Amino acid sequence: MAKIYHLDQIKAVLAKIDVISAIEEGFVFYSQDKTVIPPVGEIIFENPPGETHIKYGYIKDDGYYVIKIATGFYQNIELDLPTSDGLMLLFSQKTGGLISILLDEGHLTNVRTAAAGAVVAKYLAPKKVNRIGVFGAGIQGQLQVQYLKSIVDCQDIVVWGLNQKELDHYQNIMEADGYQVKTTLQASDIVSTCNLIITATPSKTPFFTLDQVKPGTHITAMGADTLGKNEIDPMIIKSADIVVADSISQCTERGEISNAFQRQLISKDEIVELGSIIIDPSLRRQSDDQITVADLTGVAVQDIQITKKVYEGLIETE
Amino acid sequence: MAKIYHLDQIKAVLAKIDVISAIEEGFVFYSQDKTVIPPVGEIIFENPPGETHIKYGYIKDDGYYVIKIATGFYQNIELDLPTSDGLMLLFSQKTGGLISILLDEGHLTNVRTAAAGAVVAKYLAPKKVNRIGVFGAGIQGQLQVQYLKSIVDCQDIVVWGLNQKELDHYQNIMEADGYQVKTTLQASDIVSTCNLIITATPSKTPFFTLDQVKPGTHITAMGADTLGKNEIDPMIIKSADIVVADSISQCTERGEISNAFQRQLISKDEIVELGSIIIDPSLRRQSDDQITVADLTGVAVQDIQITKKVYEGLIETE
Repeated sequence: MAKIYHLDQIKAVLAKIDVISAIEEGFVFYSQDKTVIPPVGEIIFENPPGETHIKYGYIKDDGYYVIKIATGFYQNIELDLPTSDGLMLLFSQKTGGLISILLDEGHLTNVRTAAAGAVVAKYLAPKKVNRIGVFGAGIQGQLQVQYLKSIVDCQDIVVWGLNQKELDHYQNIMEADGYQVKTTLQASDIVSTCNLIITATPSKTPFFTLDQVKPGTHITAMGADTLGKNEIDPMIIKSADIVVADSISQCTERGEISNAFQRQLISKDEIVELGSIIIDPSLRRQSDDQITVADLTGVAVQDIQITKKVYEGLIETE
Repeated sequence: MAKIYHLDQIKAVLAKIDVISAIEEGFVFYSQDKTVIPPVGEIIFENPPGETHIKYGYIKDDGYYVIKIATGFYQNIELDLPTSDGLMLLFSQKTGGLISILLDEGHLTNVRTAAAGAVVAKYLAPKKVNRIGVFGAGIQGQLQVQYLKSIVDCQDIVVWGLNQKELDHYQNIMEADGYQVKTTLQASDIVSTCNLIITATPSKTPFFTLDQVKPGTHITAMGADTLGKNEIDPMIIKSADIVVADSISQCTERGEISNAFQRQLISKDEIVELGSIIIDPSLRRQSDDQITVADLTGVAVQDIQITKKVYEGLIETE
């Protein structure tokens, strides 16, 4: 019988796991073609607008396979409900059978996404980060910064949000966690003062243009995971010194890079896969002047890795 | 918090539900374009061989959406384990949130497939069924016959299986349920004596050819749901008087019809969708001499309908 775990149990185990290393290992498997990851499943809703992503697959010769479901219904804010929900399903690669259900309510998707941001920063962030700029005052805007703690030595944040209410909420949470937080409703306040920028919104129009980006800046764009979403000017993708995709096949179909790829502003051989920069140091940031961009659309291998590690942690503590 | 139900609870409720009508209604929605059903998700395994299907979608303006997972690992027989597992996930179309998990272990997939066979027989079976022939002595070979009970007035079966052991098992179960059962290891014993034939195996080579099929025969082929599977001669698809697909788009990509379609033995406009024959009587069997074939690959709308009805039954009995 499948073992079922709830969010509080999952969070307790997460605190003991080295998530960033697990995600890093996953991206290496992925870029070494040691995974079987079919195309992302997607259900689009119109009334109210929403989306559900199904990501699934396995690492070859491993014991497990994973199916992950994560939802995004942004109008839930008006109902005072969380905008995301989800669960992780762990199965046996040997018998096909269901082993465990992690009722993570979307949290593991948030965490594995933030951990990918940390892996990116490890190899692409400038040596000296002056200030971290965050677009999006939601949970991902928090986690992306919190997961940088072990990677980047900077506690100074400026955050952009849709309204002052959500910005105040963000500021309270992050200041309680030891950060110095400035808030803004002007995108230009971020690009003019930050050399590590994270975009974590479902925006459909870019926040800033190429000419606004300072030399030496690294940008991690992770909000765009569906056709039509767009957080940064496609010209930045065209002109950046290094453009990294968590998955080249996914990022050219959906996500930030696709907005440039579909307009032929960049070709596949100008994009480097995240797993490749982990393996090959020559593909990482080489100077303090380079502009680097990473596009994170979310790859099933992250869901596979975090689900396995959390499950193993859960059964260990039983 | 999502409500979780187990197989015994699901089976108890199933007995009280008119599954055939629910599935019939679903096919009408589907063929009237009142559903949003993305392409089937599929994970293929090699060591050991196996497959997992993810089917999902929603009926427009309904309250729910459903994601169904069903596995097939045929070598599990050697481990004395069931060859299939699975679960049904019911979500809200209004908030995206998870409402319920039905841990059906693949049973609801088996039942909704058998119910589709009954819907097909309702409109395509010859008036007088002399004998029902079944390829496949597994659970689907049983359920396909049992779900015909309210549709077809014939208790006389001949069943083909891989070995006498599984045939004896089938015979015992079905005779206890009131059927007269003959068993055979020769495919020709079925086509020569039956005018309602069901194929319910994962075979990769056809069991019989066009010239063996008697006039007036109806064939329901439901074993082939993945590329490479093939239970009946593609020439039968080419020459049958009526060829019905549960989904034209799915059946031309996977399933029995695809084996003929890929070889250009049949075109899309020669295929009728199951929902269409439910709506339009002129598309059903018109004479006692016609040879009719239905290809069932399994459509998410079946999973949506059975999951909704079972869930509603479960909360009613609480």
